[in-house]
Amino acid sequence: MTATHQYFSPGHVYLVGGGPGAWDLITVRGMRALQRAEVILTDHLGPTAELDKLCDTSAKKIIDVSKLPYGKQTTQEKINALLVEHARTGAVVARLKGGDPYVFGRGFEEYEHCLRHGIECEVIPGVTSAVAVPGLAGIPLTQRGLVHSFHVVSAHLPPGHPRSQVDWPALARSGGTIVVIMGVRQAGAIAGALIDAALEPTTPCAIVQEGSTEKERVFRCSLGNLAETMSRNQVRSPAVYVIGEVAGPRGDQP
Amino acid sequence: MTATHQYFSPGHVYLVGGGPGAWDLITVRGMRALQRAEVILTDHLGPTAELDKLCDTSAKKIIDVSKLPYGKQTTQEKINALLVEHARTGAVVARLKGGDPYVFGRGFEEYEHCLRHGIECEVIPGVTSAVAVPGLAGIPLTQRGLVHSFHVVSAHLPPGHPRSQVDWPALARSGGTIVVIMGVRQAGAIAGALIDAALEPTTPCAIVQEGSTEKERVFRCSLGNLAETMSRNQVRSPAVYVIGEVAGPRGDQP
Repeated sequence: MTATHQYFSPGHVYLVGGGPGAWDLITVRGMRALQRAEVILTDHLGPTAELDKLCDTSAKKIIDVSKLPYGKQTTQEKINALLVEHARTGAVVARLKGGDPYVFGRGFEEYEHCLRHGIECEVIPGVTSAVAVPGLAGIPLTQRGLVHSFHVVSAHLPPGHPRSQVDWPALARSGGTIVVIMGVRQAGAIAGALIDAALEPTTPCAIVQEGSTEKERVFRCSLGNLAETMSRNQVRSPAVYVIGEVAGPRGDQP
Repeated sequence: MTATHQYFSPGHVYLVGGGPGAWDLITVRGMRALQRAEVILTDHLGPTAELDKLCDTSAKKIIDVSKLPYGKQTTQEKINALLVEHARTGAVVARLKGGDPYVFGRGFEEYEHCLRHGIECEVIPGVTSAVAVPGLAGIPLTQRGLVHSFHVVSAHLPPGHPRSQVDWPALARSGGTIVVIMGVRQAGAIAGALIDAALEPTTPCAIVQEGSTEKERVFRCSLGNLAETMSRNQVRSPAVYVIGEVAGPRGDQP
């Protein structure tokens, strides 16, 4: 096996996609970046809780830059500044993020900030929860002859919100599987908007909370009772839900 | 580091997502499945060309089950049968696929086939090219305040084809980034359908051929000249193209 990687030079920042949560769903390249790093900036996402399975954490400076809804808050400006500050000492710096660095995170802003400050920055893709979490729960996002597209939406803003960039009625008519992340609170409004536009209330749905971890919980329902199912089961973030025929029951499933 | 994985028992099949092509963009779990496997079924996608960087191939039975457009053809039925045949001998079998096993492949059919025949089968997610290839080329699929969704479409069937499941006009109005895979031949028809529906011909596009590999080529253009750009540069499969503001030029890029 090749033991070296051309990119691991000092004073660099690696934006590492950590995957959906399980420690071994990071890429090999991502693991190797963590192993080479002298400084690791982590948050509460990805494989942070089991970082010691990926590298010798005792030999590194680990900085927690979590942004928790009701807990520790690190501003994006502070994170950006820390990346540049440590890279300027000549250190190999890894910024470990959940999922993929460029899907619904602020990874690209971190990349641009480094470049603006003369720091080389390399992105290392990760397994995005939007794909992996349904997959691990037995739900493919596409299916030959049935669904040829999938649509991943962040629902931190509800349908109709003035800053929402999502046209939910168009999405309802797109013909593909819809994957919603950060949408626990908005489930009722989203289901309503999709049903008002085009989708049947009987459209199958699957909800996965804390996918890929030992705490994973999966619920199947229909679009018409999505919000009620989530409420009754007290589904909390992080959760992903899938809307479309692929989420329906199958003969082979237990 | 933890040395064992609870799932590696004999007679099982692991559907392994190999990622977009570079050998080290497979997950750690995927690499470990390959290392434990006695039989590996590979095709021309994912890290197949550099499999020896991931495991000791000389100690394993490697079976090429490629489906090449003008080359070797292995039927899906044959692949399904091989998985069951080898698992029934008690072997640990890995089915190595490109990208993620459940995104635009027939991985779920392989999973269902194994289960129908009493073979335990576990999916190991992979980095999908639809996300990683743009990311490695410097294109985030979402951007805070600008784009809150992305739409991944397989364009092996052109717009208007009776078996196409994609509503391209709805997609044009969705407000998100559009990522097209398997769409080299259909680029002109797709751009036309999107422009006819809602998108401006000036909408930025980026084309990435053989992303994540040393042969990677990236072209930026607008939706109005997407097909011409691909034709002039003789873009061939595998290629991904991204349509939306995120594909536009940025101040910090070289």
